[in-house]
Amino acid sequence: MAAILAPFASAPVPHGGPTIASSRRVRRSPFHDRVMAAGPLRVTVYNHMLLPMGYVAPEEAYWHLLEHVQIWDVAGERQVEIEGRDAVRLVELMTPRPMASCAVGQCRYAPLVDERGGLVNDPVALRLAEDRFWLSLADSDVLLWAKGLAHGLGLDVRVREPDVSPLAVQGPKAGDVLEALLGAWTRELGFFRFREATLEGIPLVVARSGWSKQGGFELYLRDGARGNALWDLVVEAGRPHDIRPGTPSAIERVESGLLSYGSDLTLEDSPRQCGLEGFTKIDKRADYVAREALVREAGTAPDRRLARVVIGGAPTEGALLPWPVSRGGPFGGEPIGLVTSAEHSPRLGRNIGFAMLPMDAHTPDADLFVHAPDGRMLEARFVGDITADGWG
Amino acid sequence: MAAILAPFASAPVPHGGPTIASSRRVRRSPFHDRVMAAGPLRVTVYNHMLLPMGYVAPEEAYWHLLEHVQIWDVAGERQVEIEGRDAVRLVELMTPRPMASCAVGQCRYAPLVDERGGLVNDPVALRLAEDRFWLSLADSDVLLWAKGLAHGLGLDVRVREPDVSPLAVQGPKAGDVLEALLGAWTRELGFFRFREATLEGIPLVVARSGWSKQGGFELYLRDGARGNALWDLVVEAGRPHDIRPGTPSAIERVESGLLSYGSDLTLEDSPRQCGLEGFTKIDKRADYVAREALVREAGTAPDRRLARVVIGGAPTEGALLPWPVSRGGPFGGEPIGLVTSAEHSPRLGRNIGFAMLPMDAHTPDADLFVHAPDGRMLEARFVGDITADGWG
Repeated sequence: MAAILAPFASAPVPHGGPTIASSRRVRRSPFHDRVMAAGPLRVTVYNHMLLPMGYVAPEEAYWHLLEHVQIWDVAGERQVEIEGRDAVRLVELMTPRPMASCAVGQCRYAPLVDERGGLVNDPVALRLAEDRFWLSLADSDVLLWAKGLAHGLGLDVRVREPDVSPLAVQGPKAGDVLEALLGAWTRELGFFRFREATLEGIPLVVARSGWSKQGGFELYLRDGARGNALWDLVVEAGRPHDIRPGTPSAIERVESGLLSYGSDLTLEDSPRQCGLEGFTKIDKRADYVAREALVREAGTAPDRRLARVVIGGAPTEGALLPWPVSRGGPFGGEPIGLVTSAEHSPRLGRNIGFAMLPMDAHTPDADLFVHAPDGRMLEARFVGDITADGWG
Repeated sequence: MAAILAPFASAPVPHGGPTIASSRRVRRSPFHDRVMAAGPLRVTVYNHMLLPMGYVAPEEAYWHLLEHVQIWDVAGERQVEIEGRDAVRLVELMTPRPMASCAVGQCRYAPLVDERGGLVNDPVALRLAEDRFWLSLADSDVLLWAKGLAHGLGLDVRVREPDVSPLAVQGPKAGDVLEALLGAWTRELGFFRFREATLEGIPLVVARSGWSKQGGFELYLRDGARGNALWDLVVEAGRPHDIRPGTPSAIERVESGLLSYGSDLTLEDSPRQCGLEGFTKIDKRADYVAREALVREAGTAPDRRLARVVIGGAPTEGALLPWPVSRGGPFGGEPIGLVTSAEHSPRLGRNIGFAMLPMDAHTPDADLFVHAPDGRMLEARFVGDITADGWG
């Protein structure tokens, strides 16, 4: 087992800098022991939980994800469970996307929007029963937002964080691993569908989902005491497929156009500004918190919007984001926007990223410059709207 | 300047382990450049912001704090501003402590409690005007809680996170530094009182407060672009007093009985269970969110409560907390409670900490054992209620 659990022995990566101070406040996931045994080089904190962010050089992990299969501790995607007579009502209050039509057994991406039209979070919602949802969260305390609304409006719901921790299996061989682990039915599971299952007594919800475009599953562990056992079973089933410990890949998700809450989406941004209007029904939905703000916005011309940009210069790893963007040459004046994420794409051989830009900069002729953290001014080019495919 | 900005050159501390992954999501404080120049060994994430947690060995920083003065980047203590006709009403809804009686210019510690009686956060509230408060927060998204309540109840308030970042000056010589920096009036500022001030054009709120018991001030920077300038002015004023970059000291705060939200206080704990009943008026306050839950609790005997404990064994640095506690000998059975914080006290020469324990274990005869992260069972002794002074 040790050989499989250890990260790519061929690629030691020198690292330094500060370590994470230890306290109870930064929670450990049910998979913590196995993660630490695998030796993460980079970690972060996500929903008050330690989240590993890489065991080897980012590019090496990226290629492995594209070609094989990885096991990811993403327990930091905490769940908020909303249950009770008013559960559908509360979930629909929080998002401009219709949720009453979400079937039991279905996942639905649901941008949560506040009364000013700003993004609170962008979870995947799982409907477990007519009157029970999980919101599988990005990094903000939606528990408090949901509880505040429910209390203020006197809704008949129970809102809590259950003992549920996602473990992702991602990559083109994820289907093989799941079939070996749980059976052939996993092959038939549709995208964004889930089923409850038990694996050697471990209670799970198995969803065809995950934060990559390489295919895969998320195993929602429903008993925090069984983290090591679940991890070991997945690793064992993945052994013939070269499974390795991995994490969400910043490179892969930028290439794939997956947005990250807190980086590309914030409380200061509306769904339209982030290209999420396809997940909203501004007019057709009644009675949601953001309605007035989003209807008002819909009556105006867009002012700014996320774009895809290609950035010159040497390969970058997205340090010290966001980076200011100006136009009209390297000395062209005040910043007009921000690069919110940027990575060097090994497949494209150039730096790509997302930038929040005013609409008149949404043209390949915009003559953009990015203020890099090391002081350099890098040429940048608009290649398309955030909702476009590809990188020009 | 470099000599002062650099941490204690005499005490290099070997460190290793994972570093923090960089993205826009983990925000940098206005003091980030100066903090990084000083070379933190340990960091954490607090309210979605990088928070330094030590530049030198913890014990060396502790002694310096007790004898001299330190400059702390505590910008991670983000503010929620509540302003408008219903500002007092919303603040009083969130806490069982009276807030209408808080004077303009006064700080008041205000445990925030949810509808189930659980602690949401424990900020210091600053009343800036009759209709305007800041909540200077521990680590949870109170912005979303306050906005949810305000929206649900239709209150006439504006709730937002303003551009305000605390910089703490802590230690017995903090008064000398503040006098040199801002003038003699700072000597007259009462404890938990604040005044607005300007320093070389930098807008500040200056409060006599801070997360140590060594005396000091918090400078609330009101323009995030002036972080470097403020830091440099404080360091310059502190030069005659051996000011050094520091951080909240886990050792000092445990010795001093200061509780940390997320570690010693959580959403699962009530104010009474955490010894905070002195900051509540359960019956006398009408119309607060937690009223029904706290009145109900007040009618019952306490079940568990934070205690002060002394723990045997070698000096500890509080790794992998919380630690389970059992009673009745090292093989005495299932855990009955948790050590929530623990540190080695250099002045006492022993390990001290806080533990959430059932009431019948609140006795020096309880025969407690702590399950240390390395597998050892350490003897522990109850030395007093959390509200007691000293360590027995």
